[in-house]
Amino acid sequence: MNLALIGVGLIGGSIGLAARTRIDGARVRGFDLSEGALTLALEREVIDEAASSIAEAVDGAEVCFVCCPVGALADAVRQALAAGGDCVVSDVGSTKRAVIDGLEAPGLQEADVSRFVGGHPLAGAEASGVEHARADLFDGATWYLTPTQRASGMLYERLYRTISSFGARPTAIDAGTHDRLMATVSHLPHVLANVLVGQAARALLEERQRLPATGPSFRDATRVAGTNPAVWRDVFLSNRGAIEAELESFVGELGDVLARLRSGDAGALEGWIERARSERQRLLELELAGGPVSELRVSVPNKPGIVAQVALALGEAGVNIVDMALYPAADMQSGAIALWVAGERGAQRAVELIGHLGYPVAPVADGGDF
Amino acid sequence: MNLALIGVGLIGGSIGLAARTRIDGARVRGFDLSEGALTLALEREVIDEAASSIAEAVDGAEVCFVCCPVGALADAVRQALAAGGDCVVSDVGSTKRAVIDGLEAPGLQEADVSRFVGGHPLAGAEASGVEHARADLFDGATWYLTPTQRASGMLYERLYRTISSFGARPTAIDAGTHDRLMATVSHLPHVLANVLVGQAARALLEERQRLPATGPSFRDATRVAGTNPAVWRDVFLSNRGAIEAELESFVGELGDVLARLRSGDAGALEGWIERARSERQRLLELELAGGPVSELRVSVPNKPGIVAQVALALGEAGVNIVDMALYPAADMQSGAIALWVAGERGAQRAVELIGHLGYPVAPVADGGDF
Repeated sequence: MNLALIGVGLIGGSIGLAARTRIDGARVRGFDLSEGALTLALEREVIDEAASSIAEAVDGAEVCFVCCPVGALADAVRQALAAGGDCVVSDVGSTKRAVIDGLEAPGLQEADVSRFVGGHPLAGAEASGVEHARADLFDGATWYLTPTQRASGMLYERLYRTISSFGARPTAIDAGTHDRLMATVSHLPHVLANVLVGQAARALLEERQRLPATGPSFRDATRVAGTNPAVWRDVFLSNRGAIEAELESFVGELGDVLARLRSGDAGALEGWIERARSERQRLLELELAGGPVSELRVSVPNKPGIVAQVALALGEAGVNIVDMALYPAADMQSGAIALWVAGERGAQRAVELIGHLGYPVAPVADGGDF
Repeated sequence: MNLALIGVGLIGGSIGLAARTRIDGARVRGFDLSEGALTLALEREVIDEAASSIAEAVDGAEVCFVCCPVGALADAVRQALAAGGDCVVSDVGSTKRAVIDGLEAPGLQEADVSRFVGGHPLAGAEASGVEHARADLFDGATWYLTPTQRASGMLYERLYRTISSFGARPTAIDAGTHDRLMATVSHLPHVLANVLVGQAARALLEERQRLPATGPSFRDATRVAGTNPAVWRDVFLSNRGAIEAELESFVGELGDVLARLRSGDAGALEGWIERARSERQRLLELELAGGPVSELRVSVPNKPGIVAQVALALGEAGVNIVDMALYPAADMQSGAIALWVAGERGAQRAVELIGHLGYPVAPVADGGDF
């Protein structure tokens, strides 16, 4: 099978490695605007051959993955389709409607459009660049596919099989639904983080105060603030409609909170927090295919080696940590570790093990800031 | 010195232990609405003596700490002051205006009011209850004090010295300023987390979808959603004014984001994200007294022992981890660790050490979701 890669960064590079190591007889031809990336891709044997244009990369290919930044996707996909042939063209962008809308531009024939199936693998992001590409990046990962009514069934099936052979789980989803979901669980949190960090910076500056050590919630909520401005500018723009709707709905909800605060209705406030509690728990459990998740808090001296000691004790006993957060105190000498552990038995075992180490530990009924 | 504790939970209990172990000749008398907590406090030698009322606890005391939930604070403080004597009365609540306003209720004399100085130690929260109390809980912690114009200077000084002897750093701040700061860095993030989790739960339910594994940002932003409804209801209510102002300002900012999205102004969007980036960096660095903080991402197999291995390698080399987050992939078999490390040298060293372990690691220029 011949594959074409347009863009050989982390995702494109990992597709190349996965194809070359897991598909018998796969040959990968790659194109990238960066000469350096292309050279490195050849050196790392991510691709068999470097092409000097999109059309050259696609020539003779059966599957083409367009792996370039969201802002450049629509154009690159159009070029890959315009190169003709019998190739199914997909992409790996984190928004899907904009690429499909881009197919409506003049110049593409219906036969070409039918060869496009959008995609979005939920993997990557720890670091960019072909130097971090791995053949196993997609093992077990959901890989959304967003075929339209116009997509060829035969080519969809070819793409599906290819992605499956990378170890991923292809999951069909409507492009609009995909974009609304991403707006909710990814784009909206990024917007909130950016706004929150700005509001806090101004408030602290005005009051000539440092950030009080009390805010694990603030630290969590602003962790992604300022993420890669050029990339996220394009993500926001390419999913404008859905993000606008999410923001409007969010503003509406904040209005409801304001009304509850102004009325001073303690019962309504408590009920609202209770609902959030059960909703978060349900989302975490769904994510783990139904298993319960327990949160533990451990008080520890904040010095090198403690996190290791705790994690090691749990690791040796086979207790897996689903999620973790560290909250150092202001002095950086004491702090808390928040642990989320799968399964009630895992949580009990974790409490025992950490207790043996001599650190105060407890399941969290409360938590948050102090 | 005689101390009175009204409420012997985590904070009250830790004050008792700190006083009894660090102040020569300290005698601590405690009162709690819970018989069980009081018995346990005696057993753990947190207090010397149990009182059967607030007045009895305060009788003959020189310093009294009211350590009960925010909703019950104003009333307990009034009772402690009404008991008379020469005792400075303080509290440990996370909002400060409401207690001070409570002093205006009829029945208290000016001389009594002058004996109150509000306080808020930035410590605790990992787990509640006297069983988790520790003498060293306040070591190095900021302890806000909010004296009013009416407070006795002599009594303020007595309180200041007592708190210093617990190992904490008393820091005077205007009560209103304190509450605005807390509204920004703690209460607002809790509101946003609650709203966000609700919006996502509805969206996912509507679309019959599970939470996509793509959302480290969502996980971070909703970690405190649903935190202790009864406690947070009272925190929200007791700081209504400041939270309302923060929410209104936040809604205004979201309106600006909406305008930028609607106009499709790429430059304005990018500039806004750039500002958030530098604001977050500045806040982190201020928090660490000016030192730079570097973010690293490590790709790891998600199995027991890996976090330990990484943390151990850094710990043994003396590299301190300022903040940490785990992002398991959907399959729970691979994932990423985000590490924040203080100092450029620390970051370089961490990259070397983790590289030796064989895991891909890189300083983050991007990050966020994928």
